[in-house]
Amino acid sequence: MAAPLIDPRDLDFALWRVLDAEQLTGYERFADHGRETFEAVIETARRIAEDKFLPHAAKADANEPYLENGKVVLIPEIADAVRAFSEAGFMAAHHDADRGGMQLPWTIQQAAFAHFKAANVPTAAYPFLTIAAANLILAHGSEEQQRVWMQPMLEGRFLGTMALSEPQAGSSLSDVRTTARLLDDGTYAIKGSKMWTSGGEHEISENIVHMTLARIEGAPEGVKGLSLFIVPRYRLDETGKAGAPNGVRLIGLNHKMGYRGTVNTALSFGEEDDCIGWIVGEPNKGLLQMFHMMNEARVGVAFGAIMLAYRGYLESLAYARERPQGRHPGDKDPTTPQLPLIEHADVKRMLLQQKAVAEGGLMLALDLAMRIDRMNHDPAPDIRRREGLMLDFLTPIIKAWFSDQALVANHNAIQIFGGYGYTRDFPVERFYRDNRLNPIHEGTNAIQAIDLLGRKATQNHGAAFAAVIEAIDDTIIQAADIPEAAEIRDATRIARNWLVEITRELTQAAPEIGPIRLLANAEAYMDLAGLTVFGWIWTRQAIAAAREGGDFAQGKLAAARYVARWELPRAEQRARLLQSLDATLVDVQESWF
Amino acid sequence: MAAPLIDPRDLDFALWRVLDAEQLTGYERFADHGRETFEAVIETARRIAEDKFLPHAAKADANEPYLENGKVVLIPEIADAVRAFSEAGFMAAHHDADRGGMQLPWTIQQAAFAHFKAANVPTAAYPFLTIAAANLILAHGSEEQQRVWMQPMLEGRFLGTMALSEPQAGSSLSDVRTTARLLDDGTYAIKGSKMWTSGGEHEISENIVHMTLARIEGAPEGVKGLSLFIVPRYRLDETGKAGAPNGVRLIGLNHKMGYRGTVNTALSFGEEDDCIGWIVGEPNKGLLQMFHMMNEARVGVAFGAIMLAYRGYLESLAYARERPQGRHPGDKDPTTPQLPLIEHADVKRMLLQQKAVAEGGLMLALDLAMRIDRMNHDPAPDIRRREGLMLDFLTPIIKAWFSDQALVANHNAIQIFGGYGYTRDFPVERFYRDNRLNPIHEGTNAIQAIDLLGRKATQNHGAAFAAVIEAIDDTIIQAADIPEAAEIRDATRIARNWLVEITRELTQAAPEIGPIRLLANAEAYMDLAGLTVFGWIWTRQAIAAAREGGDFAQGKLAAARYVARWELPRAEQRARLLQSLDATLVDVQESWF
Repeated sequence: MAAPLIDPRDLDFALWRVLDAEQLTGYERFADHGRETFEAVIETARRIAEDKFLPHAAKADANEPYLENGKVVLIPEIADAVRAFSEAGFMAAHHDADRGGMQLPWTIQQAAFAHFKAANVPTAAYPFLTIAAANLILAHGSEEQQRVWMQPMLEGRFLGTMALSEPQAGSSLSDVRTTARLLDDGTYAIKGSKMWTSGGEHEISENIVHMTLARIEGAPEGVKGLSLFIVPRYRLDETGKAGAPNGVRLIGLNHKMGYRGTVNTALSFGEEDDCIGWIVGEPNKGLLQMFHMMNEARVGVAFGAIMLAYRGYLESLAYARERPQGRHPGDKDPTTPQLPLIEHADVKRMLLQQKAVAEGGLMLALDLAMRIDRMNHDPAPDIRRREGLMLDFLTPIIKAWFSDQALVANHNAIQIFGGYGYTRDFPVERFYRDNRLNPIHEGTNAIQAIDLLGRKATQNHGAAFAAVIEAIDDTIIQAADIPEAAEIRDATRIARNWLVEITRELTQAAPEIGPIRLLANAEAYMDLAGLTVFGWIWTRQAIAAAREGGDFAQGKLAAARYVARWELPRAEQRARLLQSLDATLVDVQESWF
Repeated sequence: MAAPLIDPRDLDFALWRVLDAEQLTGYERFADHGRETFEAVIETARRIAEDKFLPHAAKADANEPYLENGKVVLIPEIADAVRAFSEAGFMAAHHDADRGGMQLPWTIQQAAFAHFKAANVPTAAYPFLTIAAANLILAHGSEEQQRVWMQPMLEGRFLGTMALSEPQAGSSLSDVRTTARLLDDGTYAIKGSKMWTSGGEHEISENIVHMTLARIEGAPEGVKGLSLFIVPRYRLDETGKAGAPNGVRLIGLNHKMGYRGTVNTALSFGEEDDCIGWIVGEPNKGLLQMFHMMNEARVGVAFGAIMLAYRGYLESLAYARERPQGRHPGDKDPTTPQLPLIEHADVKRMLLQQKAVAEGGLMLALDLAMRIDRMNHDPAPDIRRREGLMLDFLTPIIKAWFSDQALVANHNAIQIFGGYGYTRDFPVERFYRDNRLNPIHEGTNAIQAIDLLGRKATQNHGAAFAAVIEAIDDTIIQAADIPEAAEIRDATRIARNWLVEITRELTQAAPEIGPIRLLANAEAYMDLAGLTVFGWIWTRQAIAAAREGGDFAQGKLAAARYVARWELPRAEQRARLLQSLDATLVDVQESWF
């Protein structure tokens, strides 16, 4: 390993100097913690990630899950890693101490978990899906469900999944057909097919708990008739241990381009009317509840994408420092030694792009985690409300915009390695394949863009949008007298002004042009909003860097300059397209293709 | 197969209606041909491509070449395909009739060959490298070399390679270390290591002819000391058949992300002083000569990238028409049937992007082929000169800009398929992996950008640049009274004006700022030039489409609108960066990363 999983300087910078995460200890829930316990947890995560997650990442890619005698076979290192994760207490890290948790802030948990994502995103998916499923039961399940189903997840005995999509209903959850029939004892008979369930079957845990969307017989069509069920692989015996099979049958495995360590399944429920589910919360509220898990998963997907970008950055940076190749333009003397790649301008461009997305994305992911902590624990209702609104707006942006840019970053990592980057001798080609999933799952990036423009930008009279703009404006004011931050601040202000103007114009035009035309250019709106947020986070980092001297701070300021000069000017181009209410995509007819 | 290899309407449109390739029959060399013979050749290629190249494309990807008892094992279908290609006369398609060739225009040969690339780029690499190697011997080799080495290539008995790169010299050919020592009989003893040689070893042909760069002992350092050699795998017996081994040893195979059917090798020459080479042309002119093959290979790489984009387009188009998913924004009635994907605006955006790159790229590749024909066969010296100049400027653009955009196209193809696109059940993930090589090989895209700005834009007092601008201006004038072409024409003119202005400003600034800073932003210059060329080719296609009615022409005009509205506005952004002589990439220090 030439490069560390995460440069500790970046994590320190984001957590303590940009975000001031130490202030979380001021909340009563975290009062027993301090920066030292936080750092100890992060250090434990780093060690387990390096020892148990990283070493098998390439092996899991080369040996994808397969079926043998009807059982899913994973390389054994995956189960070992999940066990080590769980035994260190990470499954319950943010849960109450009296449930066996560490009562950690979400922020610190995420800073710790960044190491598992950096080491091995596909293996990390098993615990992270489980944590999200447990959170869903905590938020909406009964006390009994928390005891019976959630508690074994916190102990790592049961793993969790999301069972939403179906073969005919991927993006369109409105068309979910799986049914639930109420039985005499209050449970439901579940019947239907699910597709793309990650971690849907394996032998690495005693049980698997599928958080499943289904439609109760007689419920309305569409998303308003979906309910949420706990559907386990095995029913429980009287001691709470996995017992008899519950009629969840594995139909097949999906063979993916990357992300191979995460077994991905097609499942059928109750083919022989033998599958039972327990409803979570009220009937027909399933999608609303599931959004709890989906929003967490969306940020999680983005964080995974960002850490893949981060890994590609560190790997290609190490290579660019070591590998001699070529000379400066104009230097035609072949008797001089070759320069390291990092001396070439275009290599520096590709490093800066990666640095900007990876380090900026890491900071933003932690920033969102801080907002989750404040939303959940701040005593002031207006702060809790504001943070919730900001999360509404920023979640689709981190998911879509950052997963797209993270893939560009991994592209650049390969390009720096040249031909070697295209071989399986270096990890960057794997990062690129793994990362290609992230714009697709947990709602395609097009869905995120429609969510952003069609819902988040306007809901509650634009309250979420206004909260984000206010935060950006605060940053712009903070940067007022900091010359090192002036350029990124000004570029961000221009993007911010465009975003405000375009949002206003589109909102005004919406009643006249209707939703189809309004949302046709949602991808351009996403890019405009993403660029604005990109500028915002780099302004914040520039402010923090300006307080420090030295090479590290210079690097942050250089990345901010790169963002200001090379990336943010695209905002105007996207804004002008949106301003024209361009109808190219509406007008083009199917028969013209 | 839901989709054809190439929609014949696109090929017809490009060849006969945009490019008017029938005029080639006016050249004496092609006088025996007519549109009918041209179309018969293309039809033969289509048939062989469908029968012999397409069916094993997925299998070759899943079964990459391996070593068994020291021999390279390829799936047998690859040899069958190469044989069928050769037996149909395609190895010699553009060669003289008295050499067994068809004396086809390069344009028609390329239109035919597009089908092999569309069907299976990795298998097509074997014949295409051979054709390029044969062309190199034709251009620079002696009569005897043509008879002894080239003729068996035209017959498909020998296959050819390019052996340039070395482990320590990928982009930097200046640092090639392979040596050549003159022997008494006029041949050379070759010694050294070569890396990344595609088709470097296999058992599918009687012999392999490596076109090899090496440095004659005592020759100057750097590129000025490189000479070109024919280095066969086997020496020839007195009848011209492959005989004794020639000391070319396989060191290992490179295991790639994609493009797997093309075996890629590390070779060592003359480890035991047992490797002989025949010099081609004069000593120390090797790189100049090799550029003949490299320019052909660069356009070939681009054409492969474009055909991968084209295949992804047709596959995702067919899927978008078939797959129902979701409803229009605002239509919340879940009892209505789901719409086909193609009805969604963002899917149309991704289809238009693919269509613009794939169909535009196909037309540009054929346009360059026409220029090669005119350069070689036009009786007027000024036309021959002009076409050569235009090829100089357009070659790095088609290689770099189109291979980048083709990868974006393949990204979009996957995105339209959603989760299915990420699985190996559909070919689009393979196209994406195959295509990732194209920005790397035959000179990375950064090298192309430096070549474009540092050499092609300014050489001969900007003659190549001026020739291209003149051609663009001709197109703009032709579009003057065609309302359907007005929008793409105007957008192209804006990009063209920026390109001219920026080229002028950079040329003026060059002596002061020096080559390092001049070339630091070459990537932005490449994008500006690429966008201008993109606008140019779509203006030409819009002019042709405006003469026709119907859905097909409407589709071309819609793609032109997409290019004008969604893509070309980026030109201004890139121009302003270039205009600022931005020094971000020069100033950032290695220690800041």
